[in-house]
Amino acid sequence: MERLLVIKIGGHVIDNEAALSEFLKDFASITEPKILVHGGGKLATRMAEKLDIPQQIIDGRRITDAETLRIITMVYGGYVNKTIVALLQSIGCNAFGLSGVDGNLILAHKRNYHKIDYGFVGDIDSVNTTLLKQLLQIELWPVFAPITHDRKGQLLNTNADTIASSIAVALAEFYSVRLIYCFEKRGVLNNLSDEHSVIEEINTDIYRQLKNDQKIVDGILPKIDNAFNAIHQGVKEVIIGAATDLMQNVSAKPAGTLIQK
Amino acid sequence: MERLLVIKIGGHVIDNEAALSEFLKDFASITEPKILVHGGGKLATRMAEKLDIPQQIIDGRRITDAETLRIITMVYGGYVNKTIVALLQSIGCNAFGLSGVDGNLILAHKRNYHKIDYGFVGDIDSVNTTLLKQLLQIELWPVFAPITHDRKGQLLNTNADTIASSIAVALAEFYSVRLIYCFEKRGVLNNLSDEHSVIEEINTDIYRQLKNDQKIVDGILPKIDNAFNAIHQGVKEVIIGAATDLMQNVSAKPAGTLIQK
Repeated sequence: MERLLVIKIGGHVIDNEAALSEFLKDFASITEPKILVHGGGKLATRMAEKLDIPQQIIDGRRITDAETLRIITMVYGGYVNKTIVALLQSIGCNAFGLSGVDGNLILAHKRNYHKIDYGFVGDIDSVNTTLLKQLLQIELWPVFAPITHDRKGQLLNTNADTIASSIAVALAEFYSVRLIYCFEKRGVLNNLSDEHSVIEEINTDIYRQLKNDQKIVDGILPKIDNAFNAIHQGVKEVIIGAATDLMQNVSAKPAGTLIQK
Repeated sequence: MERLLVIKIGGHVIDNEAALSEFLKDFASITEPKILVHGGGKLATRMAEKLDIPQQIIDGRRITDAETLRIITMVYGGYVNKTIVALLQSIGCNAFGLSGVDGNLILAHKRNYHKIDYGFVGDIDSVNTTLLKQLLQIELWPVFAPITHDRKGQLLNTNADTIASSIAVALAEFYSVRLIYCFEKRGVLNNLSDEHSVIEEINTDIYRQLKNDQKIVDGILPKIDNAFNAIHQGVKEVIIGAATDLMQNVSAKPAGTLIQK
């Protein structure tokens, strides 16, 4: 099977013009089939502040009310997405900006709730693999904004990590998928205060061991759980690493943490 | 040749939720190949006001400075575009939101100027017909936001009427194109105070006559010039009419003004 790279970049890169430009140069230079999923960064928060739209945070989580959804659609779906695509196009990468609503690429439903209503937040039901394959076949490289819809006319704010893993899982039937999460650190660290203590590989056994030894700190847990979820649904490997290490993380010997069965 | 409909809606429909919904129902029900181009409406102006970004108007024309371009990219490229696509998807139309930057669909250059620098405004150089045809062939109906790029990383604000006519002209080689401009009135009127005085047909001779008689008032002139431009470059017919008359304007006997050679 042909390899496919599904790469997610988060806000810390998007917020830094020079870092974003370097990262996109690397992404453009990848010669294999590839998909980019971007988060939003602090731009949406800043826009909400400027527009005097109060942000509700409950239990550390932002509530996506109608006004916040509108800002997210504007900032992530419009500004961030088109800016990234324009930069990629300028360096010869045939990028194509989209969201889950376009061509019904990602169908979701508004999150069910018991105690806290998170608002217009989407949990993913399905990915339109037929269309994604068609785009990849004509060498259009999708750049996803973290927005989905319920096919009843409602846009939904959706976690970019989850979009990346859902796409990776859905396409695992057709491609040998490597999912790469780019984040602030070089990988999962053995010792948080030592940037060089990257754990090279984590498999199910090692993961159990690390959790027992309480080496896995809270912040990284959802990312690793997400990774194992993807692995157990057919994704060949997941790498958690730094945006600056993208090219090495695409290669046979990753700089970040490799997660496999 | 198969027929293709290129349809442009302006701000007056986008600003009115009920009118937009009715219009999109009609658009969804069209069974032929179709492309929608939307303008922006007053949302961008309102957003600029809320964000305290002064709008420079010179000789009645808005200047697109960097801040205004950012708002246009957010509002038209993000909010308006994705809202329209979500509505169309909810009523069974396989819409796909995009802008000229995606897949390098519309290449433009920043407008040259002698006296007035209009800022980040694009004049169109070329349309990527190969990709547009591929999208139409898999029955993805493009919904264009009025944004292009120069392939050097610069996004450009571009007139939606011109985007519609450029797309129509570029695809005239492959389709029998009908270009439909939806605007506030039912067509070009013989008597501005009489909504029912729609001129049914305008050809080059009639147009000359109408201009001599000073029947064509300023506001509509650029639209008709644009229409004749398209006609002289291979577009089969252009119709100028009301958004509410879309279905009739798609049919053999339009309600609006038909412009032909």
